[in-house]
Amino acid sequence: MSPAFMQTTRPAIGIDFGGTTIKSAVIQDGRVLAHGAVIDTQLFPQADALLAEILRIIAVLRAAHPEVVAVGVGLPGLVDSVNGIVHTLTNVPGWSEVPLRALLVERTGLPAIIENDARAMAYGEWKYGAARDGRHVLCITLGTGVGGAFILDGRIHRGAQLAAGEIGHASIDYRGLPGPYGNTGGLEEYVGNHQIAARAAQLYRAAGREVPAEHCTPLALAESARRGEAIALGLWDAVGVEIGAALVNVVWLLNPDAIVIGGGVAQAGDLLFTPIRRTIRERTQAIYHDNLRVVPAALGNAAGMIGAATLAAEATEA
Amino acid sequence: MSPAFMQTTRPAIGIDFGGTTIKSAVIQDGRVLAHGAVIDTQLFPQADALLAEILRIIAVLRAAHPEVVAVGVGLPGLVDSVNGIVHTLTNVPGWSEVPLRALLVERTGLPAIIENDARAMAYGEWKYGAARDGRHVLCITLGTGVGGAFILDGRIHRGAQLAAGEIGHASIDYRGLPGPYGNTGGLEEYVGNHQIAARAAQLYRAAGREVPAEHCTPLALAESARRGEAIALGLWDAVGVEIGAALVNVVWLLNPDAIVIGGGVAQAGDLLFTPIRRTIRERTQAIYHDNLRVVPAALGNAAGMIGAATLAAEATEA
Repeated sequence: MSPAFMQTTRPAIGIDFGGTTIKSAVIQDGRVLAHGAVIDTQLFPQADALLAEILRIIAVLRAAHPEVVAVGVGLPGLVDSVNGIVHTLTNVPGWSEVPLRALLVERTGLPAIIENDARAMAYGEWKYGAARDGRHVLCITLGTGVGGAFILDGRIHRGAQLAAGEIGHASIDYRGLPGPYGNTGGLEEYVGNHQIAARAAQLYRAAGREVPAEHCTPLALAESARRGEAIALGLWDAVGVEIGAALVNVVWLLNPDAIVIGGGVAQAGDLLFTPIRRTIRERTQAIYHDNLRVVPAALGNAAGMIGAATLAAEATEA
Repeated sequence: MSPAFMQTTRPAIGIDFGGTTIKSAVIQDGRVLAHGAVIDTQLFPQADALLAEILRIIAVLRAAHPEVVAVGVGLPGLVDSVNGIVHTLTNVPGWSEVPLRALLVERTGLPAIIENDARAMAYGEWKYGAARDGRHVLCITLGTGVGGAFILDGRIHRGAQLAAGEIGHASIDYRGLPGPYGNTGGLEEYVGNHQIAARAAQLYRAAGREVPAEHCTPLALAESARRGEAIALGLWDAVGVEIGAALVNVVWLLNPDAIVIGGGVAQAGDLLFTPIRRTIRERTQAIYHDNLRVVPAALGNAAGMIGAATLAAEATEA
């Protein structure tokens, strides 16, 4: 039974704090009631000014929706959701050791929660999206970086230092490519956006064609593959096997019932999902894969806002 | 705070059902009050006869300890602990789809639980052993096979089909050695007892020495390494890096605060723990490893009995 039908959540503002843009919305029961104006993150290099802009948009949303009971923010980086502290953000300077939850509570008068963005997205997909029926869920996002978050036994798994879910740094080859933290063979070193582009450019060059890496976006490579181009087809298959191999490890370790795959790279669709599912099926016992759903994310860009708002609304009921 | 000091459990019989022997004891608060006679598993090729012998020993223990309130059994194989069914046992023929919990309840008149042996051991180590202070714990056993079990957020993590924890089949190299289930690079294919022995024999042969694999037990190889023999030292370091690599993945994914390592191979002690800890330190960020304890199992052979008995006693209080 889906949690979505077990209760009605109260309306809350969900904020998806990204390195490029900050999106916000009033959310209730997983549905967007109203969108806030999008903030260009890079226009506000000072944390104070950016926070003021976020508060301004919260005020606009509340003026139209005074029934809002809480604010939830998903952020890309190391976030202490228990104490409400932003330790560091990826690609957003100036946000170091910011007590964001306390600042939001003080300046809005509303209860607030903050959470890592991958976990907010996973919570959204689990409550209202592609993993609605799951009890043990991995949500993985494929973009410039590869992130992840777990719902285990119906709860977000954060880990001892609230740092769990980093499937992009987990290894598919212990003697493989070096990663940023002394790690070797981390999935991100093979299937991050930039890595896929560089591999494609290299494959084209080996075939006598000069295609600059910046033209080898996931979208362009997917179009080439759908036209039947062998190099792009082969690359998507290899990427699918590599992602599948990382997921195989999660399957043996945690025996999930759903794996949700989102992010820009996932828009390659079946080009990616077919080799991923095949790899999991070939490398695990039937009991692990017969009832495992490996599905694309369903909430798109709204997943993070929906998850953050839902966590915030639920916290007011606890 | 340790759960051991939070409550007193009622006395229960814990049974460690192994492919070679079946051990039993009356347990209270993690301590053995009395041992049952050891059963030679292979003397009872029929499930009925083996169950009768187990019941006989339960009766003897209860005669001496009439205060026993429950029975818990840890079994090596696929066990449905929710419905109390033994699906299959590793190395014990005749135990297929046995409703063991119902049989125990019917024939002893006591409440009973059954559990996978790795999980029973992990629960014992978590409640009373090496992982007492942990909240997110992996317990891994290194023997002929490599098994594992997770305590996450203070509860046993069983997974969607109750099949979680198989770190021996999770991969350290997605293009590595073939495993029994189509899997590739499974940890067990590198560091299982027999694999270590075969590797040692091969290394000796390459160095011009004929040492049969059956002489290359973990104990013999540990003794050789402690005498300073280069081949054994190098092999233990390689095995430690391989085990460490598998644990690195668990650390990135789940951010545990304790990893407990048991089983015969773990008796190599620092020969193994030094490269394991070094590998985790080198390949993860400080936040993951600074507060992570990687420790040997503390309860030895009694861990499974203690865990099973504790689960059984706690079930009577639920």
